Amino acid sequence: MKDPGDHRICFVGDSFVQGTLDPECRGWVGRVAAAARARGFDVTAYNLGVRRDTSRDVRARWEAECRARLPAGCAGHVVFSFGANDATLEEGRPRVGEEESTANLAAVLAAARTHYAVRVVGPPPVGDAEQDERILRLCARYAETAAELDIPYLPLAAKLAEDPVWRNEVAASDGSHPGAAGYRLIASLVLAWPSWWFGPAP
Amino acid sequence: MKDPGDHRICFVGDSFVQGTLDPECRGWVGRVAAAARARGFDVTAYNLGVRRDTSRDVRARWEAECRARLPAGCAGHVVFSFGANDATLEEGRPRVGEEESTANLAAVLAAARTHYAVRVVGPPPVGDAEQDERILRLCARYAETAAELDIPYLPLAAKLAEDPVWRNEVAASDGSHPGAAGYRLIASLVLAWPSWWFGPAP
Repeated sequence: MKDPGDHRICFVGDSFVQGTLDPECRGWVGRVAAAARARGFDVTAYNLGVRRDTSRDVRARWEAECRARLPAGCAGHVVFSFGANDATLEEGRPRVGEEESTANLAAVLAAARTHYAVRVVGPPPVGDAEQDERILRLCARYAETAAELDIPYLPLAAKLAEDPVWRNEVAASDGSHPGAAGYRLIASLVLAWPSWWFGPAP
Repeated sequence: MKDPGDHRICFVGDSFVQGTLDPECRGWVGRVAAAARARGFDVTAYNLGVRRDTSRDVRARWEAECRARLPAGCAGHVVFSFGANDATLEEGRPRVGEEESTANLAAVLAAARTHYAVRVVGPPPVGDAEQDERILRLCARYAETAAELDIPYLPLAAKLAEDPVWRNEVAASDGSHPGAAGYRLIASLVLAWPSWWFGPAP
């Protein structure tokens, strides 16, 4: 099977999108892109993950960066994945509160869907019990927001938090990011997602 | 050897930077980044290659995109690599003429070097004899411009044009882009470059 479309995808988000600390420097984004090519799709993947980025940072930059990469005439896709850094405490308060964080996601999705096919991959846990609680709460809000706009949302946090591969790699690393196996794990969840564009032939 | 620095690199350029048509979706950028990590450097690589981008396109976007990724407090590096698309004919004329193309490189380098460590990787050939002649002429101008600003420049075009691995892969592909072996070849040239930041311990 060779799909004839010229698919271009921007993956916009934080360090987990960027693939931080992956010794292979591929992250889950590089792996799902290579899998799509192996399945016969002509895919160009742009990794727009930025370390430390919150929903506020993504909201400020996603549009210009996607516009430069998704010309009319190609099938433009955008995958958003952020939120974990919003829930980081600074001086006792989350960097971006739950209300603003949810509003940022809603604004970004509403604008993006008028031009592109859009998906949301929920944030992963970061290995700190209290922050992970905030992330799980945010995930529920994000899932709701995406559903209201009829945009598929893939939840990751609860599943990864109890996965021994993820937990061990994060513990052996900087306490937040996994290694190659953890990124492979996210990639496998994306590839198994019924809403993923580049699945195996049915 | 473990280098203690927090090195962040933006690779800014065109489809050859992006790694277009690499079945592994890594390109030379992903390979040199993984090699740096394997050599003990803490490297975060941002691939800002965009298909079809000319020097004019890069000049318009590089600064905002690098600023979002290279915070003060990290060692910020920028590698520029573009020019092949400038030399593409549209309605009988190059998309960007040699004078403007050279001025674009000079402007970008002069601004970038005030904030970041900067390197230039010359454009590769694209497999069309006349366009490759224009690219080689542009390369000479680019090398001069970089030298005037004391910025290391790695020439690729002449070497790749006569390399059988490169030529065969480009011929078997879309006529412009190589496959995994061609990108590996560029990576090996970058890694062997005495001006590369992340060489093996001397």
